[in-house]
Amino acid sequence: MKVAVLGATGMVGQRFIQGLQNHPFFEVSVLAASEKSAGKKYSEAAKWYIEGDIPKEIASMRVELIDRKIIKDYGIDIAFSAIPAEVAREVEGSFAEKVPVFSNTKTYRMDEDVPLMIPEVNAEHFDLIKVQQKKRSWKGFIVTNPNCTTVGFALPLKPIYDSLGISWVQLTSMQALSGAGYEGVPSMAIVDNLIPYIGGEEEKCEIEPLKILGKVGGGKVKNADFSVIASCHRVTVLDGHTISVVVGTKKDFTVEEVKELFRKFKGEPQRMKLPTAPDPVIVVRDEDDRPQPRRDRNAGGGMAVSVGRIARKKEKVLRFTSLSHNTIRGAAGASILNAELAFKRKLF
Amino acid sequence: MKVAVLGATGMVGQRFIQGLQNHPFFEVSVLAASEKSAGKKYSEAAKWYIEGDIPKEIASMRVELIDRKIIKDYGIDIAFSAIPAEVAREVEGSFAEKVPVFSNTKTYRMDEDVPLMIPEVNAEHFDLIKVQQKKRSWKGFIVTNPNCTTVGFALPLKPIYDSLGISWVQLTSMQALSGAGYEGVPSMAIVDNLIPYIGGEEEKCEIEPLKILGKVGGGKVKNADFSVIASCHRVTVLDGHTISVVVGTKKDFTVEEVKELFRKFKGEPQRMKLPTAPDPVIVVRDEDDRPQPRRDRNAGGGMAVSVGRIARKKEKVLRFTSLSHNTIRGAAGASILNAELAFKRKLF
Amino acid sequence: MKVAVLGATGMVGQRFIQGLQNHPFFEVSVLAASEKSAGKKYSEAAKWYIEGDIPKEIASMRVELIDRKIIKDYGIDIAFSAIPAEVAREVEGSFAEKVPVFSNTKTYRMDEDVPLMIPEVNAEHFDLIKVQQKKRSWKGFIVTNPNCTTVGFALPLKPIYDSLGISWVQLTSMQALSGAGYEGVPSMAIVDNLIPYIGGEEEKCEIEPLKILGKVGGGKVKNADFSVIASCHRVTVLDGHTISVVVGTKKDFTVEEVKELFRKFKGEPQRMKLPTAPDPVIVVRDEDDRPQPRRDRNAGGGMAVSVGRIARKKEKVLRFTSLSHNTIRGAAGASILNAELAFKRKLF
Amino acid sequence: MKVAVLGATGMVGQRFIQGLQNHPFFEVSVLAASEKSAGKKYSEAAKWYIEGDIPKEIASMRVELIDRKIIKDYGIDIAFSAIPAEVAREVEGSFAEKVPVFSNTKTYRMDEDVPLMIPEVNAEHFDLIKVQQKKRSWKGFIVTNPNCTTVGFALPLKPIYDSLGISWVQLTSMQALSGAGYEGVPSMAIVDNLIPYIGGEEEKCEIEPLKILGKVGGGKVKNADFSVIASCHRVTVLDGHTISVVVGTKKDFTVEEVKELFRKFKGEPQRMKLPTAPDPVIVVRDEDDRPQPRRDRNAGGGMAVSVGRIARKKEKVLRFTSLSHNTIRGAAGASILNAELAFKRKLF
Repeated sequence: MKVAVLGATGMVGQRFIQGLQNHPFFEVSVLAASEKSAGKKYSEAAKWYIEGDIPKEIASMRVELIDRKIIKDYGIDIAFSAIPAEVAREVEGSFAEKVPVFSNTKTYRMDEDVPLMIPEVNAEHFDLIKVQQKKRSWKGFIVTNPNCTTVGFALPLKPIYDSLGISWVQLTSMQALSGAGYEGVPSMAIVDNLIPYIGGEEEKCEIEPLKILGKVGGGKVKNADFSVIASCHRVTVLDGHTISVVVGTKKDFTVEEVKELFRKFKGEPQRMKLPTAPDPVIVVRDEDDRPQPRRDRNAGGGMAVSVGRIARKKEKVLRFTSLSHNTIRGAAGASILNAELAFKRKLF
Repeated sequence: MKVAVLGATGMVGQRFIQGLQNHPFFEVSVLAASEKSAGKKYSEAAKWYIEGDIPKEIASMRVELIDRKIIKDYGIDIAFSAIPAEVAREVEGSFAEKVPVFSNTKTYRMDEDVPLMIPEVNAEHFDLIKVQQKKRSWKGFIVTNPNCTTVGFALPLKPIYDSLGISWVQLTSMQALSGAGYEGVPSMAIVDNLIPYIGGEEEKCEIEPLKILGKVGGGKVKNADFSVIASCHRVTVLDGHTISVVVGTKKDFTVEEVKELFRKFKGEPQRMKLPTAPDPVIVVRDEDDRPQPRRDRNAGGGMAVSVGRIARKKEKVLRFTSLSHNTIRGAAGASILNAELAFKRKLF
Repeated sequence: MKVAVLGATGMVGQRFIQGLQNHPFFEVSVLAASEKSAGKKYSEAAKWYIEGDIPKEIASMRVELIDRKIIKDYGIDIAFSAIPAEVAREVEGSFAEKVPVFSNTKTYRMDEDVPLMIPEVNAEHFDLIKVQQKKRSWKGFIVTNPNCTTVGFALPLKPIYDSLGISWVQLTSMQALSGAGYEGVPSMAIVDNLIPYIGGEEEKCEIEPLKILGKVGGGKVKNADFSVIASCHRVTVLDGHTISVVVGTKKDFTVEEVKELFRKFKGEPQRMKLPTAPDPVIVVRDEDDRPQPRRDRNAGGGMAVSVGRIARKKEKVLRFTSLSHNTIRGAAGASILNAELAFKRKLF
Repeated sequence: MKVAVLGATGMVGQRFIQGLQNHPFFEVSVLAASEKSAGKKYSEAAKWYIEGDIPKEIASMRVELIDRKIIKDYGIDIAFSAIPAEVAREVEGSFAEKVPVFSNTKTYRMDEDVPLMIPEVNAEHFDLIKVQQKKRSWKGFIVTNPNCTTVGFALPLKPIYDSLGISWVQLTSMQALSGAGYEGVPSMAIVDNLIPYIGGEEEKCEIEPLKILGKVGGGKVKNADFSVIASCHRVTVLDGHTISVVVGTKKDFTVEEVKELFRKFKGEPQRMKLPTAPDPVIVVRDEDDRPQPRRDRNAGGGMAVSVGRIARKKEKVLRFTSLSHNTIRGAAGASILNAELAFKRKLF
């Protein structure tokens, strides 16, 4: 299938390109970006941040302006989007009239008829697509993936939620620099320092997991009903978000039970052996001092979530630390896995 | 008064030396350390880590072996201790038979008859000294200061505890490298990384504040009765521990009320205008992105605690971020302030 | 004397403000910046990067637009300039028609009639001022200070040049992040990395020292005639440029002789005991592993140059490492010292 | 062939293990280390520093004590050595009595009859092996690879030396943390800092290239006769040494000629297509700001040397910057490539 990457020059765009290299289902046919980059060779338009050089066939591609006419010009079947939130409502909407759009942008995430998906967690939310297409008169559709931090704790919360129940969640994130984009955090701001604030992040962490863990029914999602309190920090790490999570459960548990829940957890992507599905999807670290971003961010090709420091701190109070790659599992890789599942389910 | 610094070559020892420079009450008369350093000039024995050079008169002093006979040899009035926990029970005890000992070491902290003191918070715990001297037949005594992380959240919890009551506390620390000692964290371990574990730290954070906020009576301390859950991390910051704190209060509050509680908070050190007492002791930051370690660790000469990100996350749930200098307010400076208060109260 | 700081919101502007706090000769009367900042309170316009908070009386000052009319409006006696090079020719020129301008900007540095000054090295270049005023019909004048890297090696080269002669110089710099401005180096570019290139820097390092060490005569400067080869790098250090220097001398030497030349070196600022003149101006470090940026950048209040690793690598080949604070001695502090000397010499 | 790794738990030992995984010629049969590790499982003895986990079949191997009897016990054909210099003379010698030893340790490097080899540069130095075996009555032999910094500039100097001649070399290194071993550089020493000194490094950089570029004849090496001046620094980079090199050549050149020399350069490993031989071995970067350690250290699987910033600074004066992976091309990978060439030449 022919793929367009919208917002191809940024860091998430680069991860889309990396993740789609030699992909068995998808082939990158067009790289699109804003006026600043359109018309340039990709290698001139993008500040490549991933180790190694730009793949050769990509480096020489001409960047197109983001505009729906590329669908026709290039015979595009689906689009991946990493465009800025300010323009996403209009742009992604215009593409979705014609083709499926898998978006990492926050804009549509909380729309009632749009799946906010972690395919191991809530694949049944694909049911919203029909509602969406009908309501909006689209031939295509939009499926979104969560915020880069949300995915790191919402995914391991799934087996806890199903087996033990959840009353409340508190989390403190220590987030990587790449989450802010290449120019996002000046070195003067962060060397020998950390920043206890990331604009809009706590709000996303507090609402997105409730939709993700919610039940779909009657054409919409009924949110899960526990409370989430999030405190988000930026630290001097290139890639990989670390999250310290404390969970109030409804049933009590032993540490071994929880480890077993994590280890056994599988979703449809694992069962269907999708090309980029990690197996295991949750990697349990038994060492005292793991997970660590530099050591664990590439587990499962950057698609696994590593958890450690699992402890029962009080009756019905679970503590664990999770670590996941913020621009792979937390962004581009998440959308690619969504698309793989949709493809296998013949949703387009 | 003539002062001995025990464990003078390490990082906390250096902060003792720095804090006692030109002190109106105390004068450093002897620097003591282990066999490895004893007999050398201080400048040869210590790997000075503080910005600038070793004070001249200190650099040329001869390091003595830690042994009680220095009390007599140098006419020592009090001792400050930053010695390893393994040897502290015997060594600090032997000194306390003769002179007051102000210790940063954890060994005696939880002993029933030993004050674990933040002088702004629980100055009345000095009452334990008489019990201690009687029970142990000591002429001197031991007063300890808390773990470097505990002080950063126990101090701002005091006005909350007094005015709103506390049901539970959850905290996540992001701790500085200096807390592990000069050789403690290899650069290979922490560049582009963080470590979600510090041995023994969570346990200390979970018990020490209960003693500190406890009531003294009948010759001992009745611990405060809320629960504390701590998750501790090492991050790539030289000095300054950051702690994200969530507190369940007994009474509800507004953010403005809490800020006012923090701003107005004063203890005996402030009222007595002790030489190293910061005023304000709690610095409230209203900016979104403060406190930050590099910007705020030296507030009040490293003796103030900066708090920010104050929010009411739910009914009776307060969130704030605190920042304090781990080797000044969290170690040497803490003991010096304890000694200043004891001096003014004529406890020796 | 009443002072205007032009370009007051940037990092060098902040160092001007810091250096002029409580200055015995100068008082900051107006802070001027571009349209983006003009009209705002200073605390809102500037991203303060120096440790601690903005001085109170500065924080509340209103930022003015950079325009010559502030000279009259505020009764300005002199101006310090840290404005962008692109606009400096016109703006600094327009101010110099009326008042003395001490500039950190590169634009006028190589103009034949403009002093490029390190006051310990070439104070006699002040003779150019009369030529400049006559030629340009200015009542004021412009005096520039060197590039932040140049000062760190040109200053210690002075006693070598005078006593041993110089045939050639090769230098490799490892420069601090602050040299690029607050937003200059993204953290994604520099964590676990270095960048072997700084635009325009090598060219400045290769020409500026020749003018500085040149002889003034007949109304202009005859450049020194040795060659300089420079290779410049950006490293993960906040403040403080480190330079490894190799010098071909005309006479041979011993290491002790060179250390003695450095130690004894004094200029007019030291002899006149100017307020911000460091003494010694060259700090000789005998340790194997010094100077280091974090340890030595604040020597002499950031105005001294620390040198170490002094070695005679071959006959007539000297190697040393120098370290100086790039935004103090290498920028704002340099201009302030120039102004102090001019003031004492009654040049305005 | 069955291989022993001596010093298997350290960082270079780990790179040996990584480089020998699935190797077509060699198979790791025994991991040997000092008493501290002997008897333990490898996963318990080693602090694995390479991204990802220890290869499974290695993790469970039992570490043996370094002792010649492992040759017989395990039927070892060759040994790779990363043992400390202090013990290497005896230990490596005792192994060489029986089997070929490929050593990264400095001890034998400058011995007259021992090859100090970069196989692309001086493969003919293998001729020393016969001399060595005869003189020492060894059945095996020792071949050494250069210091981690030397290889990064001696390799690109080869085509310059052959085509243009070399009069002198000056270099300034900015070396990675891993070069000092896992515990070598405390984070407190290097965050927001650099260290302008590495013990013994400058001496090695100044003598080793002369032997490497020397001519073998009459059973020994006649050193190349140019001078080398080295200044070595430690910077906050995990892996990858950057070296700024200035070369006085005998013939003049253009930048394009030099780039062509670099691009065309091949050695026997490339011609024989040895398993770990990179091709190209010298990667020429045309961008202003390359090579950079994080971007370029893994070029050619960590075996290529990247060069950039190539300039003709004066007549017959060449400047370039080189970058190579210090624990792969600069250590373990270097010895493996030596062994591959020896194997193909049937030297054992």
